[in-house]
Amino acid sequence: MAKTEKDARPTPRLPKGLRDIEAAELRQQQDMLGKIRAVYERYGFEPLETPAFEYTDALGKFLPDQDRPNEGVFSFQDVASETRGDKDSGEWVSLRYDLTAPLARYVAQNYQDMPKPFRRYAVGPVWRNEKPGPGRFRQFMQFDADTVGAESVAADAEMCMLAADTLEALGIKRGDYVIKVNNRKVLDGLREVAGLAGPENDAKWLTAMRALDKLDRLGDRAVRELLGKGRKDESSDFTPGAMLSDAAIDRILSFTGWGEQGSSSASTANNVAVTLANFETAVSGSAAGREGTDDLKMLAELVEASGYGADRIRIDPSVIRGLEYYTGPVFEAELTFELKDEKGRPVRFGSVGGGGRYDDLVARFTGQKVPATGFSIGVSRLQAALAALNKDKASTADGPVIVTVMEKERIADYQKMVHALRTAGIRAELYLGNPKKFGKQLEYADKRNSPCVVIQGSDEKANSQVTLKDLVEGAKAAEAIKDHEEWKEQRPAQVTVNAADLVAEVKKILARHNA
Amino acid sequence: MAKTEKDARPTPRLPKGLRDIEAAELRQQQDMLGKIRAVYERYGFEPLETPAFEYTDALGKFLPDQDRPNEGVFSFQDVASETRGDKDSGEWVSLRYDLTAPLARYVAQNYQDMPKPFRRYAVGPVWRNEKPGPGRFRQFMQFDADTVGAESVAADAEMCMLAADTLEALGIKRGDYVIKVNNRKVLDGLREVAGLAGPENDAKWLTAMRALDKLDRLGDRAVRELLGKGRKDESSDFTPGAMLSDAAIDRILSFTGWGEQGSSSASTANNVAVTLANFETAVSGSAAGREGTDDLKMLAELVEASGYGADRIRIDPSVIRGLEYYTGPVFEAELTFELKDEKGRPVRFGSVGGGGRYDDLVARFTGQKVPATGFSIGVSRLQAALAALNKDKASTADGPVIVTVMEKERIADYQKMVHALRTAGIRAELYLGNPKKFGKQLEYADKRNSPCVVIQGSDEKANSQVTLKDLVEGAKAAEAIKDHEEWKEQRPAQVTVNAADLVAEVKKILARHNA
Repeated sequence: MAKTEKDARPTPRLPKGLRDIEAAELRQQQDMLGKIRAVYERYGFEPLETPAFEYTDALGKFLPDQDRPNEGVFSFQDVASETRGDKDSGEWVSLRYDLTAPLARYVAQNYQDMPKPFRRYAVGPVWRNEKPGPGRFRQFMQFDADTVGAESVAADAEMCMLAADTLEALGIKRGDYVIKVNNRKVLDGLREVAGLAGPENDAKWLTAMRALDKLDRLGDRAVRELLGKGRKDESSDFTPGAMLSDAAIDRILSFTGWGEQGSSSASTANNVAVTLANFETAVSGSAAGREGTDDLKMLAELVEASGYGADRIRIDPSVIRGLEYYTGPVFEAELTFELKDEKGRPVRFGSVGGGGRYDDLVARFTGQKVPATGFSIGVSRLQAALAALNKDKASTADGPVIVTVMEKERIADYQKMVHALRTAGIRAELYLGNPKKFGKQLEYADKRNSPCVVIQGSDEKANSQVTLKDLVEGAKAAEAIKDHEEWKEQRPAQVTVNAADLVAEVKKILARHNA
Repeated sequence: MAKTEKDARPTPRLPKGLRDIEAAELRQQQDMLGKIRAVYERYGFEPLETPAFEYTDALGKFLPDQDRPNEGVFSFQDVASETRGDKDSGEWVSLRYDLTAPLARYVAQNYQDMPKPFRRYAVGPVWRNEKPGPGRFRQFMQFDADTVGAESVAADAEMCMLAADTLEALGIKRGDYVIKVNNRKVLDGLREVAGLAGPENDAKWLTAMRALDKLDRLGDRAVRELLGKGRKDESSDFTPGAMLSDAAIDRILSFTGWGEQGSSSASTANNVAVTLANFETAVSGSAAGREGTDDLKMLAELVEASGYGADRIRIDPSVIRGLEYYTGPVFEAELTFELKDEKGRPVRFGSVGGGGRYDDLVARFTGQKVPATGFSIGVSRLQAALAALNKDKASTADGPVIVTVMEKERIADYQKMVHALRTAGIRAELYLGNPKKFGKQLEYADKRNSPCVVIQGSDEKANSQVTLKDLVEGAKAAEAIKDHEEWKEQRPAQVTVNAADLVAEVKKILARHNA
């Protein structure tokens, strides 16, 4: 289990599914989080931060009968160091696997004193003990907004507008995304009228929903078979069906908008009225279904009144998976633009956030239903999409100005130049490595993406001058000039100026690059 | 160990030493982190983020012979869900207990490809499995900058300037803080000339350093006894001494500046030359001591050349504790101002950051010494100090404008007003609770620290008007007006304006408050 040789050197490595995030990506993330935060704040949400781990029972994963409750979450026993060795002393704690479970705990704990409705946003890493894969990490970041204590569908409508505004604030153009909305109650109603209510029909219902998920790909004829007795595909493989009655199948297909017409693709239907009419037809006779369509109608009216058309927020029957958790409206933020990868193949990013109404979360603690609705952005996924979208934008040299060390004994002079630059608000640093080889200093500046270096040898010092080497111009010039000797003689992009003008001259170079 | 009754409701609570951070404090923290980041960036450091947990052996806490390596850190076995139950499958991982250990792992892992020196900053929570207490949490935040691969004392000097600049950027006035500097090598030299080299003298040395720590409180006569045969205090309690020779005691006291003069308080000595002369006298004859004083002399010259006097960065013999980790210069950022608590008692905040040179950390992995130096800010501690310092500054009403709901069926109209305000960049929200009791809506607005509420009843609607209630003015007026009837009639701080002017009129109110 553990290495026993005390002197063995450990290998520097990270556990699978964890990673380091380096400067360029972190800066993008920082910028992104700032923009999201600004929108959430504008909507009136207040920040809240809960700790990285909590009691396992409070987070709402029930302890399994095994020794370690490790399914999907990272859990460990909170053994205080003073009681170490006493195996029964520690309670189980878990790293948070989302930001909603800690919110529910917080609300239950502080319900008396909080303003109601309670509106908070939260951002931070969450951890999942799942099998990692490409682009699938065990630590990733979420950015959530939730309204707790608001029954009104206006609270759900607001989440959809928040999602749309956030994506646009991040530079995603209108038309390149859509917020899809459905309602768990409509699905419940559909299940009821299809005769699939009750837990004994869970498997059938799941099969039916899986079939519906294939509508765009296979078309309505194939899905009709999958909802019924089953389907044999071109290669003669047989997929068993959900064994629904024809009436039930009609209901379900009319919900998707494929019903009798058999042609309008559900996922491209932009007409809210038509979609809602389909929903109403499909669930007619179910009270839950009625409530669900009424909610959606109201939601559509509210967002429409504020100018959000179906090009941004759309009632959409294709949102049917992963709804177990929700009790009302459900949202999914989807990127719809398509890019090409290095090999020219089309890449779509799909869902970058989602949420919905969940009225049961606080009841776990208090027994009281507390209506709540929220929206969560998958930061890492959205960031990957944004990076791909912006990859052609030239990045400027954002490294620090490097003051080089020509004469080791004059390091205090060089440090003083650095200080003068910093005092003027310029990113700058002294070369702190071994200054013996000057070439190493220039290499370092290149590697740091430095816009320019400052040089003061004995000649410059004697004349109270400094030499500035513009690395951006220099790189361009070096490309143009093939002959090494010629390059050496021309010393492109290099100026010698009065030492007293150091700050002003560096500013000129930086201004040139930022223009 | 675990609750077995499945139906028992969990209690919403947090483990000891963990806490939720609410809006006001988080906003301050956000602001603070932004300012620190700006200084660190200006110094040329690049951001790096490592995950919350890593392999225990890579973090450098060696596994003890017990089952759980839990001393001081939170550790658990990384049991993947697919292998759950197989007890031997998981390697031990630990939550990071600082930001330096992950940096060492990162450097060892990526040494070939990184620019050298490598300069990074990092910010984030760290976890300590220690006994929590008042103001002592098991999750807290650090903000570090480190330069790896720079032997030059210029790198250490820079850390001191960084610390000073950071504190000033946060609004701490010059004179209200000091960066104290000492050197592990000077201490090693002192130990050597005092005849206390070698691990067999560890206990004696520790006793001697504990005695020195009491110099300011007890004076040199008492400390001389504690360094020698021991001391009996006023209540006749006897503290055993370090049993050093008179020669050794003289050396040690001359290091502190108390030596023969016996009067100059070490911790207020502002004269760098005198302090360095004391150091030199104290360690004369030791090569390590010589190196140490040379380093400090160079460091003092460098910071002086950039204009940082002893009022900001001071060589100080009082920095003598917790140096095990360091191999060269050591820094401590200390707040020196004194405030009064609620009961009028003086409060000092003391150390809010520290760091130094550590040349052995990467060698754990590679066998190669890599010189490194760094500085770390204790964010939470510093924030507490800043909050105390700024507590008299009036906080403005920073909550959202609340659009109230007078007529439930006109909610889309109200939502539209919210949207207009948000589009103009104003924090705004619709009242999302049950609108039946209007008083509740105003209570909510008060609780949210709202600057004003928007009201449109049927009368206003008929005249295309809205009423704006200025809650800040309203509160002031309510204080002045004792009579309830009078208040009702006057309706202070309330205006009715054209609905078309909503945004402009709200802006006027906000401008009034921010002025």
